[in-house]
Amino acid sequence: MRFSTLPIRLLPEAPKDADTVNHQLLVQAGFVRQLMAGVYTYLPFGLKVLNSIQQIVREEMDGIGGHEIHMPALHPAEPWKKTGGWDAVDVLFKLESRTGKEHALGQSHEEVVSPLMGEFIQSYKDLPVAVYQMQWKFRDELRSKSGILRGREFLMKDMYSFHESQADFDRFYEDVKNAYLRVFDRLGLVAKVTEASGGNFTDKISYEFMVLTDAGEDDILYCPNCEFCVNTEIAKVAEGDKCPKCSDASLKMARAAEVGNVFDLGKKFTEVFNINFSNASGEQAKPIMGCYGIGISRTMGVIVERHNDDRGIIWPTSVAPFQVHLITIGVEEAVGKAAYETLQKAGISVLWDDRDKSPGTKFAEADLIGCPHRLVLSKKTAGQVEWKKRTESEPSLVSLEDCIQELT
Amino acid sequence: MRFSTLPIRLLPEAPKDADTVNHQLLVQAGFVRQLMAGVYTYLPFGLKVLNSIQQIVREEMDGIGGHEIHMPALHPAEPWKKTGGWDAVDVLFKLESRTGKEHALGQSHEEVVSPLMGEFIQSYKDLPVAVYQMQWKFRDELRSKSGILRGREFLMKDMYSFHESQADFDRFYEDVKNAYLRVFDRLGLVAKVTEASGGNFTDKISYEFMVLTDAGEDDILYCPNCEFCVNTEIAKVAEGDKCPKCSDASLKMARAAEVGNVFDLGKKFTEVFNINFSNASGEQAKPIMGCYGIGISRTMGVIVERHNDDRGIIWPTSVAPFQVHLITIGVEEAVGKAAYETLQKAGISVLWDDRDKSPGTKFAEADLIGCPHRLVLSKKTAGQVEWKKRTESEPSLVSLEDCIQELT
Repeated sequence: MRFSTLPIRLLPEAPKDADTVNHQLLVQAGFVRQLMAGVYTYLPFGLKVLNSIQQIVREEMDGIGGHEIHMPALHPAEPWKKTGGWDAVDVLFKLESRTGKEHALGQSHEEVVSPLMGEFIQSYKDLPVAVYQMQWKFRDELRSKSGILRGREFLMKDMYSFHESQADFDRFYEDVKNAYLRVFDRLGLVAKVTEASGGNFTDKISYEFMVLTDAGEDDILYCPNCEFCVNTEIAKVAEGDKCPKCSDASLKMARAAEVGNVFDLGKKFTEVFNINFSNASGEQAKPIMGCYGIGISRTMGVIVERHNDDRGIIWPTSVAPFQVHLITIGVEEAVGKAAYETLQKAGISVLWDDRDKSPGTKFAEADLIGCPHRLVLSKKTAGQVEWKKRTESEPSLVSLEDCIQELT
Repeated sequence: MRFSTLPIRLLPEAPKDADTVNHQLLVQAGFVRQLMAGVYTYLPFGLKVLNSIQQIVREEMDGIGGHEIHMPALHPAEPWKKTGGWDAVDVLFKLESRTGKEHALGQSHEEVVSPLMGEFIQSYKDLPVAVYQMQWKFRDELRSKSGILRGREFLMKDMYSFHESQADFDRFYEDVKNAYLRVFDRLGLVAKVTEASGGNFTDKISYEFMVLTDAGEDDILYCPNCEFCVNTEIAKVAEGDKCPKCSDASLKMARAAEVGNVFDLGKKFTEVFNINFSNASGEQAKPIMGCYGIGISRTMGVIVERHNDDRGIIWPTSVAPFQVHLITIGVEEAVGKAAYETLQKAGISVLWDDRDKSPGTKFAEADLIGCPHRLVLSKKTAGQVEWKKRTESEPSLVSLEDCIQELT
């Protein structure tokens, strides 16, 4: 993309009301704009990142047999009243139509997916089955802060699975857990599987996928030696206690952000919506249900919290808006265009800063935006390009061909 | 995709409450499910079609210099009160948060995009500029019928452009018009550019892109000889009148569905939001604004209205959920799998009906779903495949290799 054509203006400084690094950097670097607290517009760079995260999640959900669908955001009140969520879920946005009908805005989709899949599930041969969607959700938060970490409107991947037995749910949960760990690994994040409360969804323990960051809203206790990790809200241990799993090390406390979760819903929803299947013996039974979320927009914020320095964002290659940030300084447009097109033809995504700005501004904004590779073409580079990775401080002079070879 | 893994069940007949062909066929063939009147879930086939339509629209909008962004659905009341839309737009869904703040659900995004772009537009050098999004919109319709043609929640592509002069707007409008005609052509639709009222948006005439169908909600008068076309709501001519443009033929009346529209918004919104740029002479001026919609989900419905027969849907290749519907009857799974994988490796999207159903059911459901090509592998086809286009009635026996060659 040619920067000069883009409707994006970077800000000289972070907005004053921004309380977290992701809010500061994403607004300053032109990825998002706040419409109101917790509600953001995604500008071209931001939408690209969001799409890349979605694509990685989609591949991993498809890989474990999930089927993508799209459920509405506007729900009738009836299923929410049926499950009790209408009164129990304090963050549920409610509205009334002109004709006096009550509606809820989806903050989760158990109330929609259960009757939907109930129509499909008739026999044990229809199980297990898992559907997921990428959908904007709404939560009537009393306070919304931390940039895109806690939104009133936010993008989620939510998957729902149905099983003939607890054992089959447990098997699938392992698949999901491994898929989630692959997702976060591909996104450049280390996620800890954390025991937590089931919240509104279930009385059982749930599992959260937590990434350590001071911008998070949870406190977790974890063992530095083994996989033990628990949310302090349900912890029966304290900081400094011996790890109850490996007995080897003392537990540490840390601030973390929840990027994913999984709930064993048991038969809560299949009972409310009276979903039955005939099992192998021909008897009627109710499926066990699970739900699995990944906060797509929140994860984007967490990536920024984990990958930045005092000059700006450092995007992991997997989700960077562009692989290469090409800067031309004082060279003919044709020279810049030739390099730009050569890179694109090699399948490399390029942001070409062809604007009439000072070299200092262009360098500072390249660091702020945070693409993995910066290439500079100037009279000084004399037919070669000055190549610097975002994580490095010193550039090196190489031929464009060599650079392309390394990047592809 | 292997049909046996899909959470889709086709219905023996159309739902009784379905008043239009798109509603009947899309539900019966398992593309969508109604959650409430005007609000639908898109199942895997339906989501695929929706994504294909979006991709075609995206390519054409990018082609005329549009930049994709994503604006929120949940809006603060203030900008809607500022423009008067809060009271004037009767279909605006309104809601109140727990803390008593008033909100609207986006039914169009002028109130969000204008201040957003106002921050960016400072000089004539920043103009023209056009941004668009693919976003679900909400309309509090008193009645919602006609399947996915008139939704309370529906997917739109909405683009907004800003110009230094009326002449530049007119130039861009021609670009949009041609892009829209390319979009509908690629989607297998003939759209008529129709003069209409500006509705809530403007006092000026607007242009609608209309496709003839009895499922539509508009009546248009058109000339069979030239491009003249007008919505009867503003027509100063009547059926049978001589065409006021070519004077050559008599006007005909027809029922039509609006799949796209374009509004010349003038300075209505740039004045309300006080958006200024310095022009080439250094004076402050207000940009001229245009907005351009395509109803993505509605267009999907219109495609079904235009492309069907008494056996089901006949998808244009450009948006078909799969190019090939592969049916295996009484052959070893390995034989089916080999053909399935060979087709996929050739880059052909395939739905493989590997279910344990009768040939009659499989054939009927293939016609109902409406993929462009049906291939049958059975003991009778003896190493070859029986190939039938959805539009043909008689199959022919060919080798899989020849078939692939023709399809790629």
